Amino acid sequence: MSFNTFGHLFRVTTFGESHGVAVGCVVDGCPPRIPLDRNDIQPYLDKRRPGQSRFTTQRREPDEVRILSGVLEDDSTGAQVTTGTPITLVIDNVDQRSKDYSDIKNLYRPGHADFTYDVKYGLRDYRGGGRASARETAARVAAGAIARKVLPGMTVRGALVQMGPHKIDRAQWDWDEVERNAFFAPDAQAAGFFADYLDGVRKAGSSIGAVIEVVAEGVPAGLGAPVYGKLDADLAAGLMGINAVKGVEIGDGFAVAALSGEENGDEIRMGNDGRPRFLSNHAGGILGGISTGQPIVARFVVKPTSSILTPRRTVDRYGRDSEIVTKGRHDPCVGIRAVPIGEAMVACVLADHYLRQRGQIGDAPAWPFAPPAG
Amino acid sequence: MSFNTFGHLFRVTTFGESHGVAVGCVVDGCPPRIPLDRNDIQPYLDKRRPGQSRFTTQRREPDEVRILSGVLEDDSTGAQVTTGTPITLVIDNVDQRSKDYSDIKNLYRPGHADFTYDVKYGLRDYRGGGRASARETAARVAAGAIARKVLPGMTVRGALVQMGPHKIDRAQWDWDEVERNAFFAPDAQAAGFFADYLDGVRKAGSSIGAVIEVVAEGVPAGLGAPVYGKLDADLAAGLMGINAVKGVEIGDGFAVAALSGEENGDEIRMGNDGRPRFLSNHAGGILGGISTGQPIVARFVVKPTSSILTPRRTVDRYGRDSEIVTKGRHDPCVGIRAVPIGEAMVACVLADHYLRQRGQIGDAPAWPFAPPAG
Amino acid sequence: MSFNTFGHLFRVTTFGESHGVAVGCVVDGCPPRIPLDRNDIQPYLDKRRPGQSRFTTQRREPDEVRILSGVLEDDSTGAQVTTGTPITLVIDNVDQRSKDYSDIKNLYRPGHADFTYDVKYGLRDYRGGGRASARETAARVAAGAIARKVLPGMTVRGALVQMGPHKIDRAQWDWDEVERNAFFAPDAQAAGFFADYLDGVRKAGSSIGAVIEVVAEGVPAGLGAPVYGKLDADLAAGLMGINAVKGVEIGDGFAVAALSGEENGDEIRMGNDGRPRFLSNHAGGILGGISTGQPIVARFVVKPTSSILTPRRTVDRYGRDSEIVTKGRHDPCVGIRAVPIGEAMVACVLADHYLRQRGQIGDAPAWPFAPPAG
Amino acid sequence: MSFNTFGHLFRVTTFGESHGVAVGCVVDGCPPRIPLDRNDIQPYLDKRRPGQSRFTTQRREPDEVRILSGVLEDDSTGAQVTTGTPITLVIDNVDQRSKDYSDIKNLYRPGHADFTYDVKYGLRDYRGGGRASARETAARVAAGAIARKVLPGMTVRGALVQMGPHKIDRAQWDWDEVERNAFFAPDAQAAGFFADYLDGVRKAGSSIGAVIEVVAEGVPAGLGAPVYGKLDADLAAGLMGINAVKGVEIGDGFAVAALSGEENGDEIRMGNDGRPRFLSNHAGGILGGISTGQPIVARFVVKPTSSILTPRRTVDRYGRDSEIVTKGRHDPCVGIRAVPIGEAMVACVLADHYLRQRGQIGDAPAWPFAPPAG
Repeated sequence: MSFNTFGHLFRVTTFGESHGVAVGCVVDGCPPRIPLDRNDIQPYLDKRRPGQSRFTTQRREPDEVRILSGVLEDDSTGAQVTTGTPITLVIDNVDQRSKDYSDIKNLYRPGHADFTYDVKYGLRDYRGGGRASARETAARVAAGAIARKVLPGMTVRGALVQMGPHKIDRAQWDWDEVERNAFFAPDAQAAGFFADYLDGVRKAGSSIGAVIEVVAEGVPAGLGAPVYGKLDADLAAGLMGINAVKGVEIGDGFAVAALSGEENGDEIRMGNDGRPRFLSNHAGGILGGISTGQPIVARFVVKPTSSILTPRRTVDRYGRDSEIVTKGRHDPCVGIRAVPIGEAMVACVLADHYLRQRGQIGDAPAWPFAPPAG
Repeated sequence: MSFNTFGHLFRVTTFGESHGVAVGCVVDGCPPRIPLDRNDIQPYLDKRRPGQSRFTTQRREPDEVRILSGVLEDDSTGAQVTTGTPITLVIDNVDQRSKDYSDIKNLYRPGHADFTYDVKYGLRDYRGGGRASARETAARVAAGAIARKVLPGMTVRGALVQMGPHKIDRAQWDWDEVERNAFFAPDAQAAGFFADYLDGVRKAGSSIGAVIEVVAEGVPAGLGAPVYGKLDADLAAGLMGINAVKGVEIGDGFAVAALSGEENGDEIRMGNDGRPRFLSNHAGGILGGISTGQPIVARFVVKPTSSILTPRRTVDRYGRDSEIVTKGRHDPCVGIRAVPIGEAMVACVLADHYLRQRGQIGDAPAWPFAPPAG
Repeated sequence: MSFNTFGHLFRVTTFGESHGVAVGCVVDGCPPRIPLDRNDIQPYLDKRRPGQSRFTTQRREPDEVRILSGVLEDDSTGAQVTTGTPITLVIDNVDQRSKDYSDIKNLYRPGHADFTYDVKYGLRDYRGGGRASARETAARVAAGAIARKVLPGMTVRGALVQMGPHKIDRAQWDWDEVERNAFFAPDAQAAGFFADYLDGVRKAGSSIGAVIEVVAEGVPAGLGAPVYGKLDADLAAGLMGINAVKGVEIGDGFAVAALSGEENGDEIRMGNDGRPRFLSNHAGGILGGISTGQPIVARFVVKPTSSILTPRRTVDRYGRDSEIVTKGRHDPCVGIRAVPIGEAMVACVLADHYLRQRGQIGDAPAWPFAPPAG
Repeated sequence: MSFNTFGHLFRVTTFGESHGVAVGCVVDGCPPRIPLDRNDIQPYLDKRRPGQSRFTTQRREPDEVRILSGVLEDDSTGAQVTTGTPITLVIDNVDQRSKDYSDIKNLYRPGHADFTYDVKYGLRDYRGGGRASARETAARVAAGAIARKVLPGMTVRGALVQMGPHKIDRAQWDWDEVERNAFFAPDAQAAGFFADYLDGVRKAGSSIGAVIEVVAEGVPAGLGAPVYGKLDADLAAGLMGINAVKGVEIGDGFAVAALSGEENGDEIRMGNDGRPRFLSNHAGGILGGISTGQPIVARFVVKPTSSILTPRRTVDRYGRDSEIVTKGRHDPCVGIRAVPIGEAMVACVLADHYLRQRGQIGDAPAWPFAPPAG
């Protein structure tokens, strides 16, 4: 696997920089005959798009996706469908202002990839972070829209569950509310609080971290593997592969450290539908690296934007001590826009495992198994 | 990439089940001419080996590693060295007691992979967890011993930093202490407390979770990539790929949610050695997916063993409600033995990225760069 | 993909050197619940085994395969089946005579990998060719035996069709004859001729090349891809990946250069079974990289053994002009034993593509399609 | 590896159909700081471009390449250089005439991928062959132009050496001549003959096959691996991965069947430059899967275009016997335009192995080695 590709059978390769011509992706391995046109993709891009509230960067990008390959009009239905060949999606960059970055061209912003880029590659694209820009994530969101169509019956939704030290009230969780506020928060009261809180952060020229939760429902039991290719391992890589993410949890996550075996293990009873009914979901829908049929629950933490107005001590690329202030256009809480990105990564990982499972196993015998005779 | 292989240039494929003939691994892509004999590997296996204190499973396995391929005696020195071809390591299973498991053969232990295995594969190896057994991790530890020799000057060490709700005191951190107690705890006082605490858990037939921290020093700046192949994404996959792990963090991890940009971004000054000196390490040694040259800091949480003496509600493979009690031989805190496993996974990921960096980039121009003339 | 692994879903990693402890492989991704024990594998190894006639090397290896992992006794049937986890096969090396090689330890045999090994790795395993030995192919043959069981109804058979300048008479092709002679030749008369011819070569201390043809029947239409992952591209890589192979052809192969479009394109009529009936098979069962349902036909050429008794000019590892005579135990026509190896590689590639097809596509609509209404 | 990606460290993913919006590729893993602008790529596309003589399809495509990502202007030099991130190249489709294909929309052309596409994917892009079109190869040629810049000092050149049954005279080989005739033939006299010969074929509405030879010079010794990842195995896959290719040879290729060990093994003497001097190159520059430092010589055969004017028997997608005549715009000898494509594939494979070698081995000790003391 290369550095800019993820997935094994449902494979996504992304490309593009913040201030280049375009960002985009090639999705290879998508099953054929899935209805797909740009209207299936655009709504997710719109959700991620910057400049939609005062709480996100004011860069104005229409983020209109074009499909360059991999689809065909089906004669019998007139609908556009996938052909099974690589699907290429391109999103042009429109509102670059590279000049904004000329002051920091030779300086390393603390908390940013500036130094590491330079020392690795021997050069860096200083304009808006280059490849490390949040702009790259538009391509993932577009790929995720395709992934959602691969696994039949799957729903993937995300929500912001913590901003700064402030957590939402889980008792108030309402998925409909997520669409109503600028923070993708599932708790209306918390959303109100976040508005004031983040205004304060923003006006101070500062930034703050956040925690995002993604829930996938309708995922069949049996996806994943016991080791390495564990479903949770691939989810962890996918979510940690998003810029600025510093931690990933499945189910109860770090809280399991304090749980006893009795508290942690989800008990089981037979459901009326002939499927097992777990009496709780501490496992987050994954046991031994394989999906249980319960909702998959993953969380990840996004660090505060490193581009802030406060002067910081740093060095330049010539090894000289210096100070830096980052002006540009930035998100005070970049975690907000990470919600659709996290959804996309989870959808892509699940689509991939769905195809891998189908490849290796085909149809397992129907569960529950027939008891042995006698 | 397959389900039982990880790494790209330094590739590890493991095999074997808890109660089969043997466990082991094939390490492909290791550079040639690295001195390597079994004495380089055995100490790490000894550290992971069960039955060394009353706090780990009483299964008695000598865990003696044999090298089947990939090494050769160097005529000029008489030392055994790697040849650059696949290195195969085998560890025989000696102390299987499959009969211990006959009672639970058709039952699904809550919190275990029993149900998911069965529904995925249409069968399961009920003897000791089969492939999902902690026994599989011996192979990773063996591979990790080779990885440590690939990246010159790298040191990878792990410690248990939390058991149940009890955290160590970081002010008391002493790496030497880690070797002295049965918990790999870096805080002598905490270790004493853990002994009493875990005795209580063990006697109650229960189990408890833990958090492990792994620190890699001597890692050069420049390993990793801005997206997907981020060094932290591969560390996350590697650590989440260990059995029973439910969360992974890099640097400050989930705590960054509550940090401001000012608090989170590590400021920089030039060091006397001509390298940048970061004034803190909230980033855990990774910025934008690429190593900074600071210590790499990763943490992961291990859930409590699901095999406990308390009766639990469950179902069997024929869809019948039932109860289960797991007797067998189990770790009351499986997190303890996860310390050398976590170290091994971190070492393997870093060795792999070291080779990938050398492949793509070769030698970057020496940093700091020469200022432009004029 | 690493250097010692091939396949994507059905993945084979081999290990071992000519004069090390053992050779073997790990087969990952095999579907579960396939009956498999060592008796399914051993006959293919016996076919490849050296020392069975005066026409192959006199090294005496029992080549007994052991299964270390990935199988389980199925309670309901008592038969041993695959579990879906990695299957490890080991074949011990028994009859090493490393001393035979001490004379050529520092010398490079013309036509051998001696120089290239040394210049690549900075060392070489001079004992019997190390990793480049034909002995490595035992592991592939073992893996191929598993692959044969993955694709239901598939038969893969090979035959030697040319030795030196002498081709078999295709009009005399009899698959049963292949089992009857020491050359795997499908033409009894040619086999008789080859015996005399090769005796002459052998007594002269010389060696000769050969061409092998492998035919796979029962392969469903639809395996492969239009580009890169073309079924023929993976067959080419697999067959060229065998030691000493210098060319690969599909169907009419190099002869198509001289064909017109009319001669080359296989015409089609509907068969009585509702499948297309191709009126010829110039394509060798593959069109546009995808199987047609006709027999897959692949051919490859094996160069003459480079270890011969005639003195040759060469250099040593210290850069000194020298002469070399290779004594050791060698095959006068190493192409003979390449027959079961070629079969194994073809079987592995087809098993892999079968799983990949099932992963990406699942069930395509039944062909022929229903005509549009109206 | 996916179906539309090749390479391991230098990775090429291509996309696009004959009659879609565009074709193109993403090149991932390219080293940074390599000067690259579109003028480095365009000449190779111009060479492959159709419509340049009466001997290739009359489709008129400017084939102008655009670079969407992965490059940056280097401040110090003003030159555009690679950044080490994915390089995306797009070539718009301009001269599609999809209507040309409406007659054959439901019919399967003998020798074409029409049937296999339909049976695999359940649909096919009938317009110009879709993904299986020769148009896809423009993307490879563009990628190859980048690959050429990765391996310093490497030259990759191809030539047509056979058309129909007619071979060039190797004694007349002149690389300069290749650029002078419409066939990329290295023998002026043969080129003259081919003009008349192919006019005959073209006027008859027929087509003919060809053999192409690609030679890479300046390739260092040591690239490749002993098995599977053999340099020749990857060359075979790359060349067989080109549309219409049915066979691949390295060095003497199929002719080695008739050679003795004495004739085949290239003898060695020390050269004046301190490198080994091979006295012949039957091996085609590769021994044991690893480059020798001699020129790499590979050949491949391209079948005659299947789209011909002669009526052929076939079936349609509804399972009805039928007849077909293909009008469209086609190459009477598609092998001609395969010359720059073959060069590109060889360049990409070599660039990839160069990076892989650097990754695994870094610097091997200088050859020849110092003799042991004493």
